[in-house]
Amino acid sequence: MATSSSAAAASQALAALAISSHGSPSSSHPGSLALPGRLGSLAGRSLRSSPASLRFLRRSQPAPSSAKAAPARASAVEALQAAATESLVDKSVNAIRFLSVDAVEKANSGHPGLPMGCAPMGHILYDEIMKYNPKNPFWFNRDRFVLSAGHGCMLHYALLHLAGYDSVKIEDLKEFRQWGSRTPGHPENFETPGIEVTTGPLGQGIANAVGLALAEKHLAARFNKPDNEIIDHYTYVVLGDGCQMEGISNEACSLAGHWGLGKLIAFYDDNHISIDGNTDIAFTEDVIARFEALGWHTIWVKSGNTGYDDIRAAIKEAKSVKDKPTLIKVTTTIGYGSPNKANSYSVHGSALGAKEVDATRQNLAWAHEPFHVPEDVKSHWSRHVPEGAALEAEWNAKFAEYEKKYKEDAAELKGIISGELPAGWEKALPTYTPESPADATRNLSQQCLNALAKVLPGLLGGSADLASSNMTLLKMFGNFQKDTPEERNIRFGVREHGMGAICNGIALHSPGLIPYCATFFVFTDYMRAAMRISALSEAGVIYVMTHDSIGLGEDGPTHQPIEHLVSFRAMPNILMLRPADGNETAGAYKVAVLNKKRPSVLALSRQKLAQLPGTSVEGVEKGGYIISDNSTGNKPDFILIGTGSELEIAAKAADELRKEGKTVRVVSFVSWELFDEQSDEYKESVLPAAVTARISIEAGSTLGWEKIVGSKGKAIGIDRFGASAPAGKIYKEFGITAENIIATAKSL
Amino acid sequence: MATSSSAAAASQALAALAISSHGSPSSSHPGSLALPGRLGSLAGRSLRSSPASLRFLRRSQPAPSSAKAAPARASAVEALQAAATESLVDKSVNAIRFLSVDAVEKANSGHPGLPMGCAPMGHILYDEIMKYNPKNPFWFNRDRFVLSAGHGCMLHYALLHLAGYDSVKIEDLKEFRQWGSRTPGHPENFETPGIEVTTGPLGQGIANAVGLALAEKHLAARFNKPDNEIIDHYTYVVLGDGCQMEGISNEACSLAGHWGLGKLIAFYDDNHISIDGNTDIAFTEDVIARFEALGWHTIWVKSGNTGYDDIRAAIKEAKSVKDKPTLIKVTTTIGYGSPNKANSYSVHGSALGAKEVDATRQNLAWAHEPFHVPEDVKSHWSRHVPEGAALEAEWNAKFAEYEKKYKEDAAELKGIISGELPAGWEKALPTYTPESPADATRNLSQQCLNALAKVLPGLLGGSADLASSNMTLLKMFGNFQKDTPEERNIRFGVREHGMGAICNGIALHSPGLIPYCATFFVFTDYMRAAMRISALSEAGVIYVMTHDSIGLGEDGPTHQPIEHLVSFRAMPNILMLRPADGNETAGAYKVAVLNKKRPSVLALSRQKLAQLPGTSVEGVEKGGYIISDNSTGNKPDFILIGTGSELEIAAKAADELRKEGKTVRVVSFVSWELFDEQSDEYKESVLPAAVTARISIEAGSTLGWEKIVGSKGKAIGIDRFGASAPAGKIYKEFGITAENIIATAKSL
Repeated sequence: MATSSSAAAASQALAALAISSHGSPSSSHPGSLALPGRLGSLAGRSLRSSPASLRFLRRSQPAPSSAKAAPARASAVEALQAAATESLVDKSVNAIRFLSVDAVEKANSGHPGLPMGCAPMGHILYDEIMKYNPKNPFWFNRDRFVLSAGHGCMLHYALLHLAGYDSVKIEDLKEFRQWGSRTPGHPENFETPGIEVTTGPLGQGIANAVGLALAEKHLAARFNKPDNEIIDHYTYVVLGDGCQMEGISNEACSLAGHWGLGKLIAFYDDNHISIDGNTDIAFTEDVIARFEALGWHTIWVKSGNTGYDDIRAAIKEAKSVKDKPTLIKVTTTIGYGSPNKANSYSVHGSALGAKEVDATRQNLAWAHEPFHVPEDVKSHWSRHVPEGAALEAEWNAKFAEYEKKYKEDAAELKGIISGELPAGWEKALPTYTPESPADATRNLSQQCLNALAKVLPGLLGGSADLASSNMTLLKMFGNFQKDTPEERNIRFGVREHGMGAICNGIALHSPGLIPYCATFFVFTDYMRAAMRISALSEAGVIYVMTHDSIGLGEDGPTHQPIEHLVSFRAMPNILMLRPADGNETAGAYKVAVLNKKRPSVLALSRQKLAQLPGTSVEGVEKGGYIISDNSTGNKPDFILIGTGSELEIAAKAADELRKEGKTVRVVSFVSWELFDEQSDEYKESVLPAAVTARISIEAGSTLGWEKIVGSKGKAIGIDRFGASAPAGKIYKEFGITAENIIATAKSL
Repeated sequence: MATSSSAAAASQALAALAISSHGSPSSSHPGSLALPGRLGSLAGRSLRSSPASLRFLRRSQPAPSSAKAAPARASAVEALQAAATESLVDKSVNAIRFLSVDAVEKANSGHPGLPMGCAPMGHILYDEIMKYNPKNPFWFNRDRFVLSAGHGCMLHYALLHLAGYDSVKIEDLKEFRQWGSRTPGHPENFETPGIEVTTGPLGQGIANAVGLALAEKHLAARFNKPDNEIIDHYTYVVLGDGCQMEGISNEACSLAGHWGLGKLIAFYDDNHISIDGNTDIAFTEDVIARFEALGWHTIWVKSGNTGYDDIRAAIKEAKSVKDKPTLIKVTTTIGYGSPNKANSYSVHGSALGAKEVDATRQNLAWAHEPFHVPEDVKSHWSRHVPEGAALEAEWNAKFAEYEKKYKEDAAELKGIISGELPAGWEKALPTYTPESPADATRNLSQQCLNALAKVLPGLLGGSADLASSNMTLLKMFGNFQKDTPEERNIRFGVREHGMGAICNGIALHSPGLIPYCATFFVFTDYMRAAMRISALSEAGVIYVMTHDSIGLGEDGPTHQPIEHLVSFRAMPNILMLRPADGNETAGAYKVAVLNKKRPSVLALSRQKLAQLPGTSVEGVEKGGYIISDNSTGNKPDFILIGTGSELEIAAKAADELRKEGKTVRVVSFVSWELFDEQSDEYKESVLPAAVTARISIEAGSTLGWEKIVGSKGKAIGIDRFGASAPAGKIYKEFGITAENIIATAKSL
């Protein structure tokens, strides 16, 4: 049959190359086919002539390359030495595969396919290429690794385990995906030291990696000296077909190409399988050509399952290209080694099952018990602990030299490394009085940003092509660009989702980096997945979201947020802040900067707002507070509660009601989350249980306000889409007015 | 100076080509430079030697093309005729420009830059290329036009006005961006007949256009006959740099290339300016090369400001390529004609100002009052009303032929055109009894989808690479693919955002098309912007969102929705449904299909759920209803309220409490929106005001539940991120249990 003879031919081609890949006798399994190592497994596969195995073999043929040609010219002795080394590499690669297989099997849940296919590139990265210190996962100058295809996290856990990270002991691998373990179902930086960012939602990781590489390029440009390149690391990322299909990855990679992030090296695990089957059913674009269009250097390693030297050569080439990021497309077989499930979607996201695990052990001649790492593999990897310590020590010495010579820079850099804020930084924030001119909070925000940029060396950021609308430019700095990476204004283009994820990468690069990013508040819808990862992964990004209501006017309902405030109030571990004027904007920034492990969303107005008496930074820190009150004994007739641009309206209504002899308290409710964290006593002092005549006003959904105003109160808001018209007209038509508050108060 | 001589050279080159572009004497403005028409304006520009004007001229040089060569070979008489025609074209193009300029000026708000640059392509499309009937904007076989760069909507309004649409009279143009007008700040299909979809949020429109073209290709493949191609239209779209940067456009365009949507023709308005300035600051990728990588045919028209023939030739070429969509990159000058603002960001999103409007009038020799359309232009365009009527009549005759010959197909197609559902369709929905086997609602959803596919000819859809997890395959159909477009399973790949927007396009193509799309519920975060447009634009997409809580287990917090239910409850005009079992899932589908102008989100479980006594389709239609009660007189001791997978837990707790002698009512709260729409009497019958001992249970954020349970009730839910562990363990650890309900009930 044509098919089986093709398979046999391919198998022969592989056999001819087997000198660098046969297994050692000690590793041959009693029940194996008595052919050595991987060669045996391939011969075993070639007996079956299914299309799947054909594809498997076709992909396994190493591409002719200079790296392959070299051993043929080497002496016989060198060849034997190389063979012995590669045999250990084979064992190490198989150890990674089986740690993954066994952990998924024990959990009866997880994704074995990617680790089995990507084990070679994983091994080469962590064993041969990357600089890191297992005993200090937070060493500043480490190479960063991101598994963008986060479902394959057992690959990363296995690598961290072999490398000697304390966070992933063998017992942690046995607790994969169990309650309270350090090996959750997707990589989570806040659970497992050694994991840089939180991935799983596809495309986020590659965008995070762009942020990490941006941070390196920026800091290197700011702090490196001709005689001391104190910052010098690579960012490696593995992404799969799924990541490639996501729009966020195109956004982030377009920027990476634009910025020329030469130290970003991405491995595209080209295994042609996604959950729905062969990627041909939905993904037939030319990825290499797309990345070239995006300004990347590209390399194709056709032999990702076995072509160690091709992978090594590709990394070498990638490093030689300094002005472009590199995409290494590595063609692999998902579930490599599994005789019946490799190259099929069934190995993507389910345990292999006991029978197939056995068959895979036979096929790859892996005679070991589950979770066993052979001594020679252990011994081989054990050097990373001392080597890592030496790397860090060497760098510390380099830093000491740096500190001697460049005292001020060193101090600034230390702050970025440690996250410690300069003493008294908050004094830089502007203050306002009721006599200060009325202004839009987006403008007041720019005053804060520019004031902070002078005192916070880690503050950098930008907008998704709305800098002049969001008012986010730092006037004392230029644009972060390919040739001016020391600057701090980042121009993201119209790429909200990529922007958010890039900022997550920046925030998680160094504790002292404080990235901010900006767009219209309604377009948080474009970047919500990245914002949720900020919240989950404790990345203290500051989201500067302007045009925060119908107050933006004529652009109309596509641009007017309605449900967005409540949607973020419901999201865990994120602060939703809606300041009403200058002092509250300053307070919001103070809160945002201090909350390094909790991102902040600042909703800011397009329109001018008055500077209100009674607002304060301290008030903002409490989330909700009284800005005016003419009652005594904590018993006002009415409590009017507003946020942001509507606080002014509440204050006006209070003035009118007071004229009519009522006692009225006005409460600014700038952040629900912060108010929730106050003592019951404080809460009672602001919103006494006995006062049920409460009216809230906010130009957004009323959902959730029942909690604040109670069943006898009334929430004035907008539970429909907005409209295109001048802002004042819409406010009036929608009843977001002092008149409506007064009428409502009288009806209570 | 080098710069000015270059400008002069470019100007001469343009003068040499002026035969086909000079203005007629009657249009020359008294105050103009006395050079004819556009040539005069160019000469005027060449006097200024700023870099901006240089760029303008460089871009204005027409590319050598065969289309340009043709007039040179024509006879003198033909050249004169052509010149006369082109002079009218010039006038028409300028009429479009000035209607836009004048409307923005009057509103003192809007985006004049794009209409001024894109007027030539707009003119050619609406005046020369497209098939439509102005007096019936909903004629089924019309060509569809989408302005993806929606901020330039005055271009579209001007074209609709000239073409004779009743929706855009001259008085509507004068009311641009005003309260209640039919010319809102961005194109809104629900406000303005003739607008196909709602755009503005960038990238949505191009993805909508992919959906429109998909719908055409699908319907043509299903209904066309060798002797009667009853469905045969193009989809045209204009997108800008902003759309190109957005990830959603790459997602949708990758699919368009994969599907070979040959009748999709996209004009990329390459004007090199976005809000933040020259696109060079953030966007230096090679767009043409990227689209080629995505499988598109590409053409570059370098003379978009003036090269009418180049544009015409490009469209002809695009139509000749049947198996690929075409991207026509049209290099234009934003704000073309404005002497001081063209080619700068200042003309993007603000009115020109009176002075610059005057200068632009001079520059383009436009002597007319604001909003004036010259009689010859009016007369030229007036043919579209009779021609459109004739086109539709012709098509109606063709349909009559079709109906005679292909009766059944015609009946089915009629349903798709009209949106009328087949009588008794809802009887196809499966029914369940408490004895039916427990099952995940995602599986029950698949039963509903497959049952409905048999009776609803317009039902089609798919998943973002999770078909086997979302359970969305229609078993009786194959995959919609390039060569099998008649099939109904759409494979979107891992492209949630593109998927949502494509479904909006499908839904808005024909009232009878019912698209559904699917992913994990948490990944609505990736597509939320498209879902909001579904809601706003009244596109009845069915969102099949599985794995709807911590109940998905081991995948962990990145995959577990928490805040998502409330986030959609707060979104206007969208139904959030969370069915608890088979009957409720059937009910949810009934509601979803009937709500053609309101999208539905179905939150479905990964895990098995019992079929509960008391659930019903009718109950779902009311949003909230009693599934069991052992009280009398509408006075139970407790009301337990659950949704989806937690309704079973509420029912169990009720059983226990009843054993202890309590009277307990269990309420299913499957859709808050539907319950809100019921009469006060009905609401009181379900949730009597007098009963305050209410407990809700839902595996999601408690935010908003105060409204239902009241200040004396208690909401059991999850106000933190989830965790990676087996589902049962997480439920227990998070207290989403019957035990917790019982303990809470006793504490009330």
